[in-house]
Amino acid sequence: MALLQLTMVPMGEGVSVGDYVAEIKRRLEAEKAVFHLQDMGTVIEGDISYLLKLLGKIYETPFEQGAVRVVTNIMIDDRRDRAVHLGDKIVSVTER
Amino acid sequence: MALLQLTMVPMGEGVSVGDYVAEIKRRLEAEKAVFHLQDMGTVIEGDISYLLKLLGKIYETPFEQGAVRVVTNIMIDDRRDRAVHLGDKIVSVTER
Amino acid sequence: MALLQLTMVPMGEGVSVGDYVAEIKRRLEAEKAVFHLQDMGTVIEGDISYLLKLLGKIYETPFEQGAVRVVTNIMIDDRRDRAVHLGDKIVSVTER
Amino acid sequence: MALLQLTMVPMGEGVSVGDYVAEIKRRLEAEKAVFHLQDMGTVIEGDISYLLKLLGKIYETPFEQGAVRVVTNIMIDDRRDRAVHLGDKIVSVTER
Repeated sequence: MALLQLTMVPMGEGVSVGDYVAEIKRRLEAEKAVFHLQDMGTVIEGDISYLLKLLGKIYETPFEQGAVRVVTNIMIDDRRDRAVHLGDKIVSVTER
Repeated sequence: MALLQLTMVPMGEGVSVGDYVAEIKRRLEAEKAVFHLQDMGTVIEGDISYLLKLLGKIYETPFEQGAVRVVTNIMIDDRRDRAVHLGDKIVSVTER
Repeated sequence: MALLQLTMVPMGEGVSVGDYVAEIKRRLEAEKAVFHLQDMGTVIEGDISYLLKLLGKIYETPFEQGAVRVVTNIMIDDRRDRAVHLGDKIVSVTER
Repeated sequence: MALLQLTMVPMGEGVSVGDYVAEIKRRLEAEKAVFHLQDMGTVIEGDISYLLKLLGKIYETPFEQGAVRVVTNIMIDDRRDRAVHLGDKIVSVTER
């Protein structure tokens, strides 16, 4: 099970890109995804096959909103020895 | 003003690395840094000169704990037109 | 058209992970992908729909080789105003 | 010894940012740094204390050229068990 952090940076669209993030948020809600908006990206939980399929669905969002060039950063933490949920790691570290 | 997300992945130290994150957390607290632990890394706020100096201070942490090889990912969102604080972007997007 | 940089870091598998990179290379060759091995990852060129499908095919590689936890970093530079090929940007910058 | 990949993406400066990369290249040459321009960033070799100091010197480059907001991605592969040089990993993998 995995967590996937998605950060999409449209270039040439001005310095404020909150409208792009807001539209990704709406689409993730429509997909009933389990996710957190965070300061440096949106983190989504699920199995990798689900996450990659979801990525394919939302990836076009900024282009559909008019962006011509987008630099995307994705970080995936995927472990197969146990379930992984949003917030787990923070609880685990805080308890040490 | 900037936000810096720091993710350090020690290799060859087993699949659980919470002790490494916990030690970075302790050092950031000792430095009185303004930061959030998040699922995919630790996000710290401040001016870039402060953040790079702080990075230099905490970067050695996993090596001091015994790691021989560490892959580090850093993402910095630095804007000079206004102040940037942890959580601001999430509030901004949620209000749209 | 896009470039996608893929960096997969298996945790708990020792500090040397060249065998994992070599297997990804073999699979990309079998897929006849256009790619470069680089110091910090493998960069592949193509349209995004092709690249995401290819990612789905090779992503399981380190898990099939025994890794239990893998941290993956993906950077995509996708522009829709013109074709993008491996090496183009370096030529463009060097000529300035 | 470490390799550091630096990718700076100025926002709101148009979709072509080769002038920014070219200026970073000039400054790295002036510093006599050992580096490679690559498709997804510039990779520099050295000890981490040297690399972080160098980062401090070149980080302001796009802001000095007029950018107001820059998203920077840095990936560091730092191992303490042996020397690491640009191109080593590619040779090692190709020989397998």
